[in-house]
Amino acid sequence: MAKSPETEHPLKVVGWATRDASGVFSPFKFSRRATGEHDVQFKVLYCGVCHSDLHKAKNEWGNARYPLVPGHEIVGEVTEVGSKVEKVKVGDKVGVGCMVGSCRQCDQCTNDLENYCSKMILTYNAVYTDGTITYGGYSNLMVADEHFIVRWPDNFPLDAGAPLLCAGITTYSPLRYFGLDKPGMNIGVVGLGGLGHVAVKFAKAFGAKVTVISTSINKKKEAIEKLGADLFLVSRDPEEMKSAAGTLDGIIDTVSAHHPILPLLGSLKPHGKMVLVGVPEKPLELPAFPLLSGRKLIAGSGIGGMKETQEMIDFAAKHNILPDVEIIPVDYINTAMDRLAKSDVKYRFVIDIANSLKAE
Amino acid sequence: MAKSPETEHPLKVVGWATRDASGVFSPFKFSRRATGEHDVQFKVLYCGVCHSDLHKAKNEWGNARYPLVPGHEIVGEVTEVGSKVEKVKVGDKVGVGCMVGSCRQCDQCTNDLENYCSKMILTYNAVYTDGTITYGGYSNLMVADEHFIVRWPDNFPLDAGAPLLCAGITTYSPLRYFGLDKPGMNIGVVGLGGLGHVAVKFAKAFGAKVTVISTSINKKKEAIEKLGADLFLVSRDPEEMKSAAGTLDGIIDTVSAHHPILPLLGSLKPHGKMVLVGVPEKPLELPAFPLLSGRKLIAGSGIGGMKETQEMIDFAAKHNILPDVEIIPVDYINTAMDRLAKSDVKYRFVIDIANSLKAE
Repeated sequence: MAKSPETEHPLKVVGWATRDASGVFSPFKFSRRATGEHDVQFKVLYCGVCHSDLHKAKNEWGNARYPLVPGHEIVGEVTEVGSKVEKVKVGDKVGVGCMVGSCRQCDQCTNDLENYCSKMILTYNAVYTDGTITYGGYSNLMVADEHFIVRWPDNFPLDAGAPLLCAGITTYSPLRYFGLDKPGMNIGVVGLGGLGHVAVKFAKAFGAKVTVISTSINKKKEAIEKLGADLFLVSRDPEEMKSAAGTLDGIIDTVSAHHPILPLLGSLKPHGKMVLVGVPEKPLELPAFPLLSGRKLIAGSGIGGMKETQEMIDFAAKHNILPDVEIIPVDYINTAMDRLAKSDVKYRFVIDIANSLKAE
Repeated sequence: MAKSPETEHPLKVVGWATRDASGVFSPFKFSRRATGEHDVQFKVLYCGVCHSDLHKAKNEWGNARYPLVPGHEIVGEVTEVGSKVEKVKVGDKVGVGCMVGSCRQCDQCTNDLENYCSKMILTYNAVYTDGTITYGGYSNLMVADEHFIVRWPDNFPLDAGAPLLCAGITTYSPLRYFGLDKPGMNIGVVGLGGLGHVAVKFAKAFGAKVTVISTSINKKKEAIEKLGADLFLVSRDPEEMKSAAGTLDGIIDTVSAHHPILPLLGSLKPHGKMVLVGVPEKPLELPAFPLLSGRKLIAGSGIGGMKETQEMIDFAAKHNILPDVEIIPVDYINTAMDRLAKSDVKYRFVIDIANSLKAE
């Protein structure tokens, strides 16, 4: 008989899980493996609430495994390390992002691109190498292979920094890979939510002039005054979009809702690059001529490899790049999810796990 | 009163033109400018028949100026040069491709990318700097600024080589720019027509393993045995496409008809690049997830700059890359267009201008 989540491993853990597509969270007792020789065990201090947590909790992507414990922006303090662990020691601050495993042998893995390994194992709702289901950071204790552990920079805030482990690397990686990290470039950021506001901060830190493109004029003041964007465009205003035609070197498009990309392509310079980091459910409409006439491109990018994630965190610490967060207790998660669904958060909820989720 | 095409310039020229959207060609007398100090005048020997000639002749892109003399794969022998021309001399063999002018001052022009200049002037059906309409190579005489003249390599066939001036640079340029020119790469070519068959030849010359992807199994034998492709996939066969999943470094997609791109994206390796060089009228369906999960990209590319066009012709001569052509007399053009519309040509018609179009 298959063991239950609560007894399949030796370490007792408490978390909050959804049990079905209603997406209602409630406390959940489960277990984690004993610290293996390459493993790092840590007490979870904070965990960010990513929009994908909401999608998965409600099975909107159709692959939910219940009970489902989300959370892939996890930071904490090391409580035990395996005999062969070299990266960290007990007491160190660490993070775990979106993945906890990969094959470690393929072309992607050997090139520090574990995120594109076909056997990459997500931090929650996936099947680990031992056959058990992975559970995320809405829980008091984590165990992960040291390869997937990020060393937290000294004196870098854990609470506000947590979302960098997903929102940070998701926006940092394409800015770097697609060469959109050069000082003086004009960079557009489409959508001003959890991902978008971090994209603005990284682009500014790279020395770019940043244009925020949003459906809502209401975000203009905040984008310019608080986040430091240089320009703001209302994507639904054809005149405004036309005024920016041919001005941008690159765009990070964080929008997950269906949206027209023709005006965005029009705002790119020749050879400009538009990178999707959100995942609209339905296919977008791709007009060929605007791509050909300016040798433009549309790409996608998904998180980043472990080496680059460490680089991103170190860069963020050096440049004091921190997401804007609202710290919540874990029992606020159902309300938080309702608000997140309405984009009523600036810009990321972070659960104060240590002070609100008690092991019983 | 505006002068007529026949009298607006001093040089008398004969060509074949369409007079309306019926697309029926007939002889047409017009004129070209006297050879300016930077101009090269040449006797047209051969002119390739591009699929876009058909679209424009019938006003399918909605911007036809009649009478319309197509032709932008033009080769011939220099008959006169302006006082300041340095590139060629009388008697030299030369070519003119898709453009005859650009601003020469913008970022694109100063970076040898005149093809992306917003003031680029097409070889036909465009307004030249003097306000007159440009006429293409279905004519006995050309005059063009030396900057837009290609020096023809010695002993390189003029007739079969002519289509390289459009089909050649259109496929060569993206293979180079997107780094798809490395030996050992796996390159897909979608569509086996005028553009596609040249793409196969360039990709092979770069040392790639080439996979032709076509809707029709009928092209398999020819693709492999005659053009030297290594593999052939029927794009409409889901099993066959699945068998090639994740194998290609890049794709040159030459198809102008609406077609699904999801199976093509699936055939790319992570970080693979798909470049559109055909222009489907309606937007294609772009699924975001396959782009994100493999950091793939879709780009467009349109012809190439003059420096690269010269490089392409020199490369083609060195590697003996020649389109497969069917030589026709000019009075066959109406039949040729009917056949082209049915893709009944392997793979490019080239008009033998010198031997079939007589100045009267």
